[in-house]
Parts: sequence; structure tokens; C-alpha cells
Amino acid sequence: MEIKANGERLWNTLMEMAKIGPGECGGNRRLALTDEDIEGRKLFQKWAADAGCTIRQDTMGNIFARRDGKSRDKAPVLSGSHLDTQPAGGRFDGILGVLGALEAVRSLNDHGIETVSPVEIVVWTNEEGARFAPSMMGSGVFAGIYEEDEIYKNKDPEGVTVEDELRRTSQIGDVTCKSFPIKAYYELHIEQGPVLENENTSIGVVTGGQGSVWTHITLYGQGSHAGTTPMEYRKDPMMGASRIITELREIIRSHSAAVGTVGRLETYPASINTIPGSVFFTVDTRHPNEKILMQINQDLKKTVNSVCSAEGLENDFKNIVINPTVEFHQDCVSNVRQSADSLGYSHRDIVSGAGHDACHVNHVAPTGMIFIPCEGGLSHDEAENTTPEHVSAGADVLLNSVMASAGA
Amino acid sequence: MEIKANGERLWNTLMEMAKIGPGECGGNRRLALTDEDIEGRKLFQKWAADAGCTIRQDTMGNIFARRDGKSRDKAPVLSGSHLDTQPAGGRFDGILGVLGALEAVRSLNDHGIETVSPVEIVVWTNEEGARFAPSMMGSGVFAGIYEEDEIYKNKDPEGVTVEDELRRTSQIGDVTCKSFPIKAYYELHIEQGPVLENENTSIGVVTGGQGSVWTHITLYGQGSHAGTTPMEYRKDPMMGASRIITELREIIRSHSAAVGTVGRLETYPASINTIPGSVFFTVDTRHPNEKILMQINQDLKKTVNSVCSAEGLENDFKNIVINPTVEFHQDCVSNVRQSADSLGYSHRDIVSGAGHDACHVNHVAPTGMIFIPCEGGLSHDEAENTTPEHVSAGADVLLNSVMASAGA
Repeated sequence: MEIKANGERLWNTLMEMAKIGPGECGGNRRLALTDEDIEGRKLFQKWAADAGCTIRQDTMGNIFARRDGKSRDKAPVLSGSHLDTQPAGGRFDGILGVLGALEAVRSLNDHGIETVSPVEIVVWTNEEGARFAPSMMGSGVFAGIYEEDEIYKNKDPEGVTVEDELRRTSQIGDVTCKSFPIKAYYELHIEQGPVLENENTSIGVVTGGQGSVWTHITLYGQGSHAGTTPMEYRKDPMMGASRIITELREIIRSHSAAVGTVGRLETYPASINTIPGSVFFTVDTRHPNEKILMQINQDLKKTVNSVCSAEGLENDFKNIVINPTVEFHQDCVSNVRQSADSLGYSHRDIVSGAGHDACHVNHVAPTGMIFIPCEGGLSHDEAENTTPEHVSAGADVLLNSVMASAGA
Repeated sequence: MEIKANGERLWNTLMEMAKIGPGECGGNRRLALTDEDIEGRKLFQKWAADAGCTIRQDTMGNIFARRDGKSRDKAPVLSGSHLDTQPAGGRFDGILGVLGALEAVRSLNDHGIETVSPVEIVVWTNEEGARFAPSMMGSGVFAGIYEEDEIYKNKDPEGVTVEDELRRTSQIGDVTCKSFPIKAYYELHIEQGPVLENENTSIGVVTGGQGSVWTHITLYGQGSHAGTTPMEYRKDPMMGASRIITELREIIRSHSAAVGTVGRLETYPASINTIPGSVFFTVDTRHPNEKILMQINQDLKKTVNSVCSAEGLENDFKNIVINPTVEFHQDCVSNVRQSADSLGYSHRDIVSGAGHDACHVNHVAPTGMIFIPCEGGLSHDEAENTTPEHVSAGADVLLNSVMASAGA
């Protein structure tokens, strides 16, 4: 028996939160642990307390707002995301997951439902990583991926440490930041990609996160005068890079669901009338299957070597980050799919292209995610947008997934 | 009847000059109108005076050192180049042309030859353009390409004007900077490219300078998340740029003697996990034939448009500089060829890939140039090098070309 959340209330709550740390173009600027971030967290805590939740905070500043269940000793069902934003971020990325969970609690209150397991709304500290590296920091320490001691020392561009800011803003709670028994974790999020919108589908049933490899490639040739060096004498790393990048796309296209991106490219020296001596570029490749991902990486390496050999270049090929693929828990995935189905929302299975707190939590708890479409797939931009209808559908699916795990 | 210059003396003179403004790696740093440049000019003036020359300077600081001929009223034969260097420049670029002309005068003295026309050694101010734009400044004002008033206002990166520095260093002479009747102008220079060395040829008979077009190209796509945007939804300007650059080389290769270079490329934003919203790059294309050069430019523009149309990109295509081709005077070219031939030096006709003072002087006087090989074609680098044998051969050809024009 499906019940519905109050989509209009959730939308209004989202718009209320968006008033804090407004951006210049209709979005938000609430960088992690700045005064704006704290103001947002305080507003959330007020709302959660008003909804009858008991609030505790851990030593990474992660906030847990608990609605008790029939059995106080049972592991809680967690749901949430983050309230911090990119420097010129949107009103939904992260915020929807936190306020969607708040809406689930409010709806349970409205309907007078007492779940068997407790339900906890969680706000993870610094998901964006825009001010302090790494991203997904609070959930990462919680899941044991990072050491708190080490993370405390990380500095923002001004040299202020994470610990400095946690202390200044009184975000260090009484509870040690570490995982505890969790029945299930659900995170509602905008897709941050164009698939759902393009396919006119309301709900993305997220089955996992794709793995990614970040590669730094430098090609070394022979810098020389653009006017006096005949083509046949050149060792031009820019020509090599162009061939490799064109080839990269062919490799990517030969594997469905793969993506590959060259986001940065620099020439040295950068002068209009000089053949560059070297060219540096980055490659970001992703695939939901780890074996295929590493095959793509091998194929790219082979291409780099063969193009360099043909062009008389040397190269340096370094994988600087390898993020394994994430597979969410089949029970959670199935609860999400089932809820969307019963509620009559169009849905499809989807793999998350981006990293989320859920990817870390997945290491310590059965985890699932729900995506809703966002306008043009745009995110990390003030123009990020979605509709009240999508938000409402996402809240319904989240509420029913939480209830399925918590037992009503 | 050919006579020989004193190659060893010229080599020693070059090495003596290289002691002024030494670089960090065996080259030179004598930026235009710095104290080091002035010290080099003073040393040259002393040497020229010792060789019996009368020295005058014009209002751009160009130095003329005159050896009188039988007929005082005849237009002089000019020969020279520049003494300023790149920030990390070599010992030969420019300097060889000035001191080679000095060696010609010294050799005429040695052999007691009185030419019919006077012979003047010229030192052009600021050929490199490394401190003050534009390059080939002194010869440009002399040839009427630039207005002296305007040029005087140009500033170095510290905000010091050309006029400030000309005054501070007392380089403003009594004579107005403008062209006067000139019988012929010869400039001896290192090739700054690899052709002569690779073909084991001593002398390049420079028939002219290739034309060049500098183009700024920006491709506009849709910036978005590298992880969440499927390949088929992308409008990726980096992929477009790679295709265009690969195509550019095919266009260039279809025209013999053409060269094409992408020296700078930038992505916006430059982030490893973001598909760039736009990509900017420069294209430098050159060809000895102006019609073919503009055909290449048209073909490039067509390629940019067709790739953009295939990739869903917009573009901005701007030719920011069009340098016409230069054809040197057939009498001067033929004198150089004849001299090399009579002296028994291997030679070949060659087109200059770089700009030289001679390209400006060519507008107001019959002009020719002589190239000698340089190591690995390297220039604008402290490692720039050539051999005493090449220097000696170049000096011989210059001396005999000057004599052919001056009448002995």
C-alpha cells in the first residue's frame, strides 16, 4: 500500500533553503563549513527538531536526525545527502537528498506511521570537495575510507584546515565519526545527466556507480620555430595529442556505456609561432564494468604508444586515480524499483556517472539511490534545475523505499 | 675574381660580443635597449670606428657605419642585421649579420679595395620584439611600415616606453629615421631551420620570405559533467579541435613547402572531470606563394565549419595577422648565388621561414639574404649554434655579394 509525500511542501522547503548563500545567477554558494553552509545546517536542524527528530553530530560534523521506531534497538534506516554546494552551484544537488529525507519523516508524521526501525536523516559534511579535498569527505571518514586525523589537516586554498573550520563553526559533535549498524541507506538525487529527461522518464533506479580512471598524459617532442621547420622534420606533440584524442573517442565508442573526456590540455611553450616542445592533457574514462574500464585504459595506453612511435614522440602515461565501480545492494535497488512501479512512475535502471556519498556508505550498509531528471542534464552550475513534479515523484519513491526497509 | 674574408677573425669577434649579457646556458640575454644591448652596440661602434667607418645614428637608434667609396655621392650598399637577442637567445641570430658586415669592411681594408659605392654596416634597433612589440621595429620605421610617433609610445611589460629607453640610453641620433637611396642590402643570417644542415649544404640563397597567416579559432560546445553525460549527448569542442588539427596537417601536407602549427590550445574550464564548454587554439600557416597560402586558409575554414557542423559546435574563426610573402630582388639573389658558386660552396635556393629586417628593407631597396646552417635548426634558444666553417663560408659569400653590388 503506497502512500504519498507532500511534494509541494518539499518544493517550498527547497526554495526556502536556496535563500541561504544565494549565487549571482539564481543558484547557491554554500561552500563546505563556511558561514553560509552552517546557516543552512542550522535551518535544517530546526526543521528536523520541529518534525520531532533527535539530533546528534559526529566528529566530522555529519548530522544525524533520528525519528524513533517501534524497536529502539534496531538498526536505523538512513537517508540523506549534503547541504554544501559548488562555488556557483545549484539548488538541488545534495539538498534534494537531505530535504527529501526530511519530507519522508514529515510524511510519516502526517500519516501517523510508526516504522519498526528508526529512520535517520543524515547530512554529510563536505560532499562537493570544492573548498576542501577530497570530495565526499564526511561519508568517506564515516565509511572508513579516510582517516579522520589525516582529513583534519587538509587545507582550503587560504590555508585554513578542516579542523580549524569544524572548530570555528562548532560542528565537532560528541559522537566519534564511524559507521554503526544501518538497516539500509537511500539517497535521492538529481541525475546530473541528460538521460532521464531525454527519455521522458521520471525515476532513475540507480543500480550502482561507474568506475573511473583519471590519467595524466604528457607527450614530448621537439619545440622549434613554426616558420622554419618543414613538416617532415617535425616532432610535434600537438599533432600527436590530436590523433590520440580522436582515437580515444573511437575506443570509447566501441564499448557501450563508456565515456571518455579530455578536460584539460596545455602546450609548452604556449606560443602561436612555436611548435610545442611538449603537450600535457588529462583523460577521464568511466565504465560500469571494471574489467572493461581497465581494458579501455590499456587500449588508450597502446594508442598513446603507437601514435608516439609514429610521430617520433616520447610519452609519460600516469593513471593518477582509479575509482572502482560501485554496485548498490540488490534489496535496496529492488525496493526503489518496486516503489516507482507501484506508484505508477515511469522508471529505468541507471548507473550513476558521478560520485555520491552513497558510494562510500555502500561499503558499510545496504545502499540504494533514486535519480530524478534535471533540466538539460546540467549540474554544478547555478542554472541547475528540475520541476516540482519530478521532485514530488522522487519524494514519493524515497518515502516508500524507506518504509519498505524500515517496516511500517 | 673572388676574395676571401677572414673567417677566424669573424668567429673571434662573435665570441667577444657573446661575452656581453651572457645567458645562463651559454647563450645571450641582450634585450633591446637594455644596458646589455647598449654595451654590445658600443663595442660594435668601437670596432667599426677602428675599421675606419664614420658612424651616424637615426631617431630610431638604428646605427649606420659607413666606409666611403670612390664616389661619395653614390647610394651605399648596406649590410647588417641586429644585436639584440631573445631573453634566452643565441650568439648568432642577428649578431652574425652585423659582425659579418663588419668583417666584409675589415676584409676590404685588408685587401686595400676601394669600392665604387660606399659600404655601410647597419644595426637595426629591436629586431626581436621580445621586450617591445613589434619585432623588426627599427627597420620597420625605416622602411615606412610603422610611424615613429606611434612606435615611440609602445611599452615593455614594465610600462617603460620605447622613447623612454631610447632617451635613457642616448640612442636617438641626429638623423631622421627614414629610408634613403640604397644600392643594395644584404643580410647574412643563420637559417633557424634544419634544411641546410640536413642536406649538408653550406649556403642558402634566400629568394624571399614565406607569407604567414595567424588564426585564432574558438569552438563552442556544451560544458558538462564528464561522468554523467553519455557520448551521444555530447557537444565536445575538444573532440572537434582534435579532428580539425588532424585535418589541418592533411591540408598542409597536400601543398609542398607549406607549414602549419598549433602552438597554443586552451580548454575552458580546464578541469579533468568536465567536458569543456569551449576550446581556443591558434593556427600559424605559412607558404612562399600567397595564393596557395590563402587557399590553405580557406580550406582550414571549411574544415572548421564542417567539423563543427558534424559535432554540433559553434565557432569563431579570426585571421589576426596576414603577412604577405616577400620576394627578394633578383639582382641581389643572383649575386648571392653567383658568389657561392664562384667560391665553390655548396648552395641551394631557400625561402626564409622567419621574418627578418631584410623583409622590411626589401620595400625600399634591392635586397638579398644569405643563410648558413645552424645546429639542429635550433634558434631562439641559448643552445643555438653553428660552426666556424659555416660562419667563414657565409662571410665570404657576403663579402663577394657586397662587392658585386658596390663595384670594386
